[in-house]
Amino acid sequence: MRLADLPTPSLLLDLPKLRRNIAAMHEAAARHGVALRPHLKTAKSVDVARLATAGEAGGITVSTLAEARHFAQAGFRDQIYAVGITPAKLDTVAELNLRGAEVKVITDDRDVAAAIAAHPGPVTALVEVDVGEGRGGLGPDDPALVAIARHLGTRFEGVLTHAGHSYAGRSIADMAQMAEIERAGIVRAAERIRTAGIPVRIVSMGSSPTALHAAHLEGVTELRAGVYMFGDLLQCQIGTEAREDIAVSVLASVIGRRPATNQVLLDAGALALSKDRSTEGAPKDYGFGLVVDLAGNATLGDAIVRRAYQEHGVVESAAPLPFDALPIGARLRVLPNHSCLTAAAYPAYNVLDGSDEIVAVWPRVNYW
Amino acid sequence: MRLADLPTPSLLLDLPKLRRNIAAMHEAAARHGVALRPHLKTAKSVDVARLATAGEAGGITVSTLAEARHFAQAGFRDQIYAVGITPAKLDTVAELNLRGAEVKVITDDRDVAAAIAAHPGPVTALVEVDVGEGRGGLGPDDPALVAIARHLGTRFEGVLTHAGHSYAGRSIADMAQMAEIERAGIVRAAERIRTAGIPVRIVSMGSSPTALHAAHLEGVTELRAGVYMFGDLLQCQIGTEAREDIAVSVLASVIGRRPATNQVLLDAGALALSKDRSTEGAPKDYGFGLVVDLAGNATLGDAIVRRAYQEHGVVESAAPLPFDALPIGARLRVLPNHSCLTAAAYPAYNVLDGSDEIVAVWPRVNYW
Repeated sequence: MRLADLPTPSLLLDLPKLRRNIAAMHEAAARHGVALRPHLKTAKSVDVARLATAGEAGGITVSTLAEARHFAQAGFRDQIYAVGITPAKLDTVAELNLRGAEVKVITDDRDVAAAIAAHPGPVTALVEVDVGEGRGGLGPDDPALVAIARHLGTRFEGVLTHAGHSYAGRSIADMAQMAEIERAGIVRAAERIRTAGIPVRIVSMGSSPTALHAAHLEGVTELRAGVYMFGDLLQCQIGTEAREDIAVSVLASVIGRRPATNQVLLDAGALALSKDRSTEGAPKDYGFGLVVDLAGNATLGDAIVRRAYQEHGVVESAAPLPFDALPIGARLRVLPNHSCLTAAAYPAYNVLDGSDEIVAVWPRVNYW
Repeated sequence: MRLADLPTPSLLLDLPKLRRNIAAMHEAAARHGVALRPHLKTAKSVDVARLATAGEAGGITVSTLAEARHFAQAGFRDQIYAVGITPAKLDTVAELNLRGAEVKVITDDRDVAAAIAAHPGPVTALVEVDVGEGRGGLGPDDPALVAIARHLGTRFEGVLTHAGHSYAGRSIADMAQMAEIERAGIVRAAERIRTAGIPVRIVSMGSSPTALHAAHLEGVTELRAGVYMFGDLLQCQIGTEAREDIAVSVLASVIGRRPATNQVLLDAGALALSKDRSTEGAPKDYGFGLVVDLAGNATLGDAIVRRAYQEHGVVESAAPLPFDALPIGARLRVLPNHSCLTAAAYPAYNVLDGSDEIVAVWPRVNYW
C-alpha cells in the first residue's frame, strides 16, 4: 500500500522522525543519569512502546486502565498509571498485578491511601505532588504528604509530579527554569518523607519540555514524558522540537475548491484532527493544523485548517493556494496542534519509513 | 449492570429522552409533509437508526464510508453520503450499491460529476448547493449548477443543501428565517435545473435547528438532521431543544478534590468530552460541559468542566461545591457542548431507560 492508495482521512507515522525523537529523549535521560519511563498516553501503541523503551530500564507510564491492560498483555510489566486512582479501579489493577504486571497507581487522598493499604490484592502507589500546575497532587510542603505516605505503609513506592504548566513556557530558558522548579519540588517532597523514616524508592518527574531542557536532575530517579515521541505544532512553539521532527500527520483529500475565496475543503475535520486549539495562545495560531504537501513539506506556505466541521476542514492561506495542483481528490497532509488528541481519533498508524510505502500498520489502544 | 458499577468514563444514553427528541422531529417532518432522512453522523448506531427511521420513508444520511458500509450491512439501503465525494471513493460506493445498497453521493465539481457519470458501477449523485454557509456547494444561481446536473446525466438524483450557519442563530425567529433562506435557496436551485429540462427527484435540506423551526417547506422533498436525537448544550442555547432533552452524557468519577480553590477533578478530560468549545461564543459558556449529578439533575448549580487535560477535567463553580458529597470515586455526569464530538470518543452507548440500570449496550461505528 502506498500513500496514494490509502483511504482518507488516515493517520501517518514517520518512522525516521519517531526514531530521532526517541533517541533525543534517550540521550537526555542518559545525560541526567536517570531512568526514562516513556508515557504511552500519546502513542497508545505496543510497537511504539517497544522502540521507546529499548535500552531503557524505567518501565512505562499509562493514562488509562485500557492502556495498562493492553501493555501488560504485551509484556510491559513495570507501569505507573499516572492519573489519580479511585477505590473502584483498584480491583482491576490488582487483577493485572496478580497476572504478573506491576502497575503502580497514584493518589493524593488520605481515604484512597487507606483503601489501597487495605486492598487484599497486590496494589502499590506513589503520592502525587503538585509543583505548581494546580491540577492533582499535594504541595511538597503539605503536611498531608507524609501522612499519606505513612497511610500507604508497605504499599508506598515513592512520589510523582508533572509540571504540566511548563506548556505555558515559550523558550528553552523558561523550560529549564520550570524543570528546576519541578525537580526541586519533587526532591523536597521525597526528602520530607525520608526524614519521617519512610524509604522513597521512586522520585518521578517529567513532561516532554522539562525532561529535554532540565539543567540537572539530582535527586530524581526517573523521567516521564510522552509527546516528545511524535511532537506537534505546540511543542515546536515552546522549543521542545522542530517542525521537521513532527512524526505524525493526517493524510487528507481535497473535497472542495473555492478559488473565489482562496479556500479548499479537506475530508479531515473536527473528528479527524480533533478540536484541540492549543496553538491559539501560542506565538503562531495554526487553527486546527498546518497543511503540508503529500511528501510532508511546507510547500503550501502558511496554509492552515482555519475551520473544522465534523468531517470538513476549511483550508485558508494568506498567499494564493495553488489551485491547479489541488483538484478534488488531491492529497495533502495536516500537522497536528496536539498529537495526543489527533492520534486518538484513529484505530492505527500507517507507518512510513522514508518512502511513500506503508511499511506497517500499528494498532492503538483507544477508549478506557 | 448499574450506573454505580460502570467503569468511568463511560457514555450514557437516556432512552426516554432519545425517543422524545425523535418524536418531535418526526412530527416536524409530518407537519411539513416531507420525508425525514435522519443524519446518523451523531449517533453512528444501528440501534438509534432503527428508532429514528421508524415510520419514516426517507432513508438515512451518513458522513463517512465506514457509516455507509455499517448501515448498509444492517439493511439501511437508501443513503446519502453527505460529504463531497472524491473520485477515489467511488469504487467503495459502487461496491456497496452492487451488494444492494443505494448510497447516493454529493458533488459540486464538474470533473467529479464527469467521473461519476463515467463510473462503470451503480453510482448516483446529488449536486451540493450552498445557501450561505460558504462551506461546500454552488450558489443556487451559479451557472455551473445546471451544467453539473447535465454532466451527471442519468446519474443525477437531485439537489442538497445544509444551512450549517443556522448554528450562529440565537433565537427561534433566527432559525425560522434561516430555514426559509435554506428552503428558498434549494427550491430555486431545483427549479433552475428543472427549467433546463432535467428532472429533480430529491430536494434535500436540513439541519436540526432549521428542520424544527421552518414555517413551511414547500418544494422540499426531504429533511436531513442529526443532532436533534441527542441534543447538547449548544442546541439548548440556540433554541432547538431544552436542557432536559439532552439524551447523552458522560459518566465520570471524582479523582481529585481541591476545597481550597473550590475545584474537583474528574476522570473525564479532553478525550472523554472532546475539546469542542462550541458554547464559547454562546450566551452561556459551559467550558467543556455542564456537570450534573448521577441522576442527571443540575443539583450542582453552574458547575462546569472549566479545563480539560487529556484524562483530567477540572470542575469549577461560582457556588461552593458540596465536597462532603464528593469523595474520591463519587460519580457525576457531564452534559456535552456538542454531542457529535463527545459521543465519538466512545465505542458504545450504555443505555438507560428510566432507572439506573443499563438496559443495553449499543455499539457505534467510529473512524472512517
